[in-house]
Amino acid sequence: MEKEDNFADWYLDIVEKANLSDKRYPIKGMNVWTPYGWKAMMNIDHFIRKELDATQHDEVCFPLMIPETEFKKEKDHIKGFDSEVYWVTHAGLNELDVRLVLRPTSETAMYPMFALWVRSHQDLPLKIYQIVNTFRYETKQTRPFMRVREIHFFESHTCHVSEEDAQCQIEEDVEILSKIAKRLCLPYFLSVRTDWDKFPGAYYTVGIDTVMPNGKTLQIGSIHHYRTNFSEPYEITYENENGEHKHVHQTTYGMSERLLGAVIGVHSDDKGLIMPPDIAPFQVVIIPIFSKDNSAVVTEAARGLLSKLSDHGIRAKLDDRDVRPGSKYFDWEIKGVPLRLEIGGRDIENNVATFARRDNGEKGTIDLDSVGQGVELILGVISSALMERAKNILMSKVQEIDSLENMPEGRILKFGWCGCEECGHKFEDTYELKILGTPYNSKEKYAGRCLVCGKETDRSVIAARTM
Amino acid sequence: MEKEDNFADWYLDIVEKANLSDKRYPIKGMNVWTPYGWKAMMNIDHFIRKELDATQHDEVCFPLMIPETEFKKEKDHIKGFDSEVYWVTHAGLNELDVRLVLRPTSETAMYPMFALWVRSHQDLPLKIYQIVNTFRYETKQTRPFMRVREIHFFESHTCHVSEEDAQCQIEEDVEILSKIAKRLCLPYFLSVRTDWDKFPGAYYTVGIDTVMPNGKTLQIGSIHHYRTNFSEPYEITYENENGEHKHVHQTTYGMSERLLGAVIGVHSDDKGLIMPPDIAPFQVVIIPIFSKDNSAVVTEAARGLLSKLSDHGIRAKLDDRDVRPGSKYFDWEIKGVPLRLEIGGRDIENNVATFARRDNGEKGTIDLDSVGQGVELILGVISSALMERAKNILMSKVQEIDSLENMPEGRILKFGWCGCEECGHKFEDTYELKILGTPYNSKEKYAGRCLVCGKETDRSVIAARTM
Repeated sequence: MEKEDNFADWYLDIVEKANLSDKRYPIKGMNVWTPYGWKAMMNIDHFIRKELDATQHDEVCFPLMIPETEFKKEKDHIKGFDSEVYWVTHAGLNELDVRLVLRPTSETAMYPMFALWVRSHQDLPLKIYQIVNTFRYETKQTRPFMRVREIHFFESHTCHVSEEDAQCQIEEDVEILSKIAKRLCLPYFLSVRTDWDKFPGAYYTVGIDTVMPNGKTLQIGSIHHYRTNFSEPYEITYENENGEHKHVHQTTYGMSERLLGAVIGVHSDDKGLIMPPDIAPFQVVIIPIFSKDNSAVVTEAARGLLSKLSDHGIRAKLDDRDVRPGSKYFDWEIKGVPLRLEIGGRDIENNVATFARRDNGEKGTIDLDSVGQGVELILGVISSALMERAKNILMSKVQEIDSLENMPEGRILKFGWCGCEECGHKFEDTYELKILGTPYNSKEKYAGRCLVCGKETDRSVIAARTM
Repeated sequence: MEKEDNFADWYLDIVEKANLSDKRYPIKGMNVWTPYGWKAMMNIDHFIRKELDATQHDEVCFPLMIPETEFKKEKDHIKGFDSEVYWVTHAGLNELDVRLVLRPTSETAMYPMFALWVRSHQDLPLKIYQIVNTFRYETKQTRPFMRVREIHFFESHTCHVSEEDAQCQIEEDVEILSKIAKRLCLPYFLSVRTDWDKFPGAYYTVGIDTVMPNGKTLQIGSIHHYRTNFSEPYEITYENENGEHKHVHQTTYGMSERLLGAVIGVHSDDKGLIMPPDIAPFQVVIIPIFSKDNSAVVTEAARGLLSKLSDHGIRAKLDDRDVRPGSKYFDWEIKGVPLRLEIGGRDIENNVATFARRDNGEKGTIDLDSVGQGVELILGVISSALMERAKNILMSKVQEIDSLENMPEGRILKFGWCGCEECGHKFEDTYELKILGTPYNSKEKYAGRCLVCGKETDRSVIAARTM
């Protein structure tokens, strides 16, 4: 199965062969997280927690179910989710008085509580997050990690005294994102979504997109400024220093298991997965190489190596199965373990282990006396190389155009747009491309013409086919 | 509010004052995990993961929803849960063809997949676990952590070649339990539940109970041997070495957020919570003691202390709020931080910090040069003292009786039982006590008479009022 030619099938094949998730569960779009995939996801969650905790967000856990009455308080929001939520209508043998929604996201679960928690300006900013599963009744074709009906999800929610403070939060979120994405070796770009594509109830939405090998973009998260759009219906107010009651300004930031889907799509090759070292369930696999009569010595050396690496905080796995080394190489290549260490009789004589990098096949030896530091160094080099390669691929897909003639295929397009909905819709409908939005916080000033109506404009947009 | 006199109110009061959870969420029995309570629960989860990983259990995550068709395959099981599950009947604007249950526990979600995963004896034992939320439509009075409708839950599920191998797993589970309970400083006892009280579908159930200050027992978990009761309807079979197809023998082990409820009930006092050091969100609170003109020096010393403790892996919090020390003491006593360190001008002169233990009020000083080791030592002593005290209380509540006259109040009773259901029910109904079961794996042989019918018996049981 070749990655470039048929991305969709290739992706499904990798997820199955690397045993990241099992889609044979008897509900479509609800998959079982098998141990290997779940370990990778928990490693991603670990870095999300680390960055959120470092920026004084408190972790909480809200109930899954939301009464219909609360869910319907913000009317744009319910309109956005009306057709894609699951309804609990019965409990035991009784019909419920008030139907309950399984959270598609937690605004409407949290904000009635925020109204109780926030009293004065001293309670602000309120910064919380949770890592939970959310539920959306997807009607499009489902795909593991990328489009599922039960979604492993991180969401942070904040309240601020002013629109400007909320804006600073969004800048902090962008910083946090850059740190998490570095762990995943994932390049991305930020776009302020069009008005017709922003989150239901948001003042504006920043989409976080990366690009797949087939040239389609994948949204891996979003950041929203709500102004007071939710605090008004949910009555979240604070008393300022002058004794006046004001509505809080809110933001949210969300990312999901799509991060793992993106990692698979971006970093893998035709041999299988390539796990970024920071989130790899096993960063190193150790393969003992036996020759005649040396099995006790080699086994001991391999175990010693495992324990040295573990002591150094490296996640290592010793594969001591009774099968040929070649078949072990094959299995761990599919699973994308970033570094393989072989240890055999000659290695032991030379006091080294032989390494092979998963990303580029490079081989060499590492001194056993400093194997912890040596491996750490190589893992760092692999991370940088993965990021560099992925960035180059992303950049190579972006193309600026100034005419509707000879539209290139499989590209991310950048062009001028006057900003009117009519031109936007016309473009999207004609070319079956989605306008991802205007570059967020771009320093360069655009000067050109709207691709559709030809009006002069200083606004550029990005458009692409999406996954 | 006094703990002994009115446990139920005292408990609610502590949960609210220590801000462990917020029960004002608009669905009864579904509470919000606030940051402090959630941190304690995540620390408990950490130790569960640690022990399960160390015994080669793999962590997974199964979907929340179970199709009605799968849910109903084991008929005792569905009978047990019929009246207490939530039903999803609609998605978007459509009625679902097959109704979906929110998992009350995951047997019926997992076992159709186990049937796919297990092929040969080489796939066994299969040992997996997950930490998820489960849902039960409780009709009894709800109480935070102890009886809720959305339950934070750990469950392990295993498959084995034989009944004996499954029995060995149960012994491993008992070992795991003892390690986790030690972290929580929780004493407990194990009872093989009566036939009418075992888990729906189980061959036998071992209940894990601890005791609250009011003399009522609280079940904090259970371990089940299923034999082939589930593998038959779900067709989980393996091929043995002779090529024969056999049904697997299964076990499960579950514990929930009740562990935290038990910690609150067992360890707290009239001043508030006492957090066992291993799971305390903050193990140490540092209070700077300012006197005239020394605030810069004291602040610097307090920060230095914080960083020393953090470097030593101790979870410490510096309380630098602008309020009197006495009011800080009060706040952190309610929240149960195990150790308080004060640092003021005289302490700095003497190169010490002054400590106060939360469990017994003992005070003293610790040398600043070795403050990490010193604090670690004291935290260890506090853990032992909490366990010792809790064990003594539990032991003091158990009383052996041999007659139905003058039944003691508020005790855990031990007595002879012939084993027949009639005598059991008669006892339970007459005295409004529940038979928790026969002591699990007790070495001492009982010799006496059935408390109800007077027949000679070598079986003793434990009975108590339950929370």
